[in-house]
Amino acid sequence: MTISAEKQPLNGVDTPTLFATLDAVRGQHDIAKFQFRASNEWVSGTHSRSQYSGFYGAGQEMQHAGVTVVESDHPAVLVGADNAPTPVEYLLHAIASCLTAGLANVAAARGVELHSVRSTVEGDIDLLGIFGMSDAARNGYEAIRVSFEIEGDADDETLRGLVEQSRRRSAVYDALTNPTPVSIDVVIR
Amino acid sequence: MTISAEKQPLNGVDTPTLFATLDAVRGQHDIAKFQFRASNEWVSGTHSRSQYSGFYGAGQEMQHAGVTVVESDHPAVLVGADNAPTPVEYLLHAIASCLTAGLANVAAARGVELHSVRSTVEGDIDLLGIFGMSDAARNGYEAIRVSFEIEGDADDETLRGLVEQSRRRSAVYDALTNPTPVSIDVVIR
Repeated sequence: MTISAEKQPLNGVDTPTLFATLDAVRGQHDIAKFQFRASNEWVSGTHSRSQYSGFYGAGQEMQHAGVTVVESDHPAVLVGADNAPTPVEYLLHAIASCLTAGLANVAAARGVELHSVRSTVEGDIDLLGIFGMSDAARNGYEAIRVSFEIEGDADDETLRGLVEQSRRRSAVYDALTNPTPVSIDVVIR
Repeated sequence: MTISAEKQPLNGVDTPTLFATLDAVRGQHDIAKFQFRASNEWVSGTHSRSQYSGFYGAGQEMQHAGVTVVESDHPAVLVGADNAPTPVEYLLHAIASCLTAGLANVAAARGVELHSVRSTVEGDIDLLGIFGMSDAARNGYEAIRVSFEIEGDADDETLRGLVEQSRRRSAVYDALTNPTPVSIDVVIR
């Protein structure tokens, strides 16, 4: 008997397949090792463009269904051409979308139907840090605040518990709140 | 006399304006306080959509030249509909584009002409963490590796020095390698 047999698809989440996938990983831990990738090309000034396509996971090379291109630039007030959002703004999308995806999965697994989930994210940054004008100001965000508005078929405590469980299992929440080793290699052509 | 009078635009960077902006911030530190924002809406399953428009900076509310919409989803192997890249893949674009924008600015400030800048970013993640199946595996990336290929009118040491200075002043590098406080607020509708 598996718990998945008792679950139905909910919130657009294929819950039986989700539980079957978790069962498969329990039986073979190696398939949980993933590697995600992006390739970036400088366009001009502070403008650059990244592309996502392949990744590694479940023991094999995989492709996304489509190729996504994303761009960053600095705004005019920071002497960019404002062709796209800043790099740091992508961190805000990352945390909102990670917590929201987790929320939908956790809600489906617990049998809670969600009607709507909206969030806003704010990140405070003192640019004295990246300008090298203050030892007190760090380069990155001083603080990030995520505010959710949720409608769903459960009481307040249950709905809040879904967000808390999503936070506890969020890859992006961990990446922002804890240190990650980042290495940088340079080849000169 | 200001150093900006000696600089010319280079690499698509308006270097005189960049130096004038730094001079302005030196004279009034408060204008360096910025707040970036995103708003996210759940679509279905693990699919959500964020929008960027306004931000606060230089003492006032500002708007980007355009509104950018970005989406995230989980791939089919992780029981998503693969409508878009995963949330964690946006972290890879963020670090590549932040380091590249800084590189172009630093190169312009130092009078180095760049011909091309390409980078690839890999992030290793063991999903046993987010699946709650291992205390040893963290939720986020175990490691991120950025690999640059650079062509420019300077010797190897000088070009490597540009990347190193960009790293030292990168907001996203700081956000990934050091902890950032993230608060989560929930309103039930």
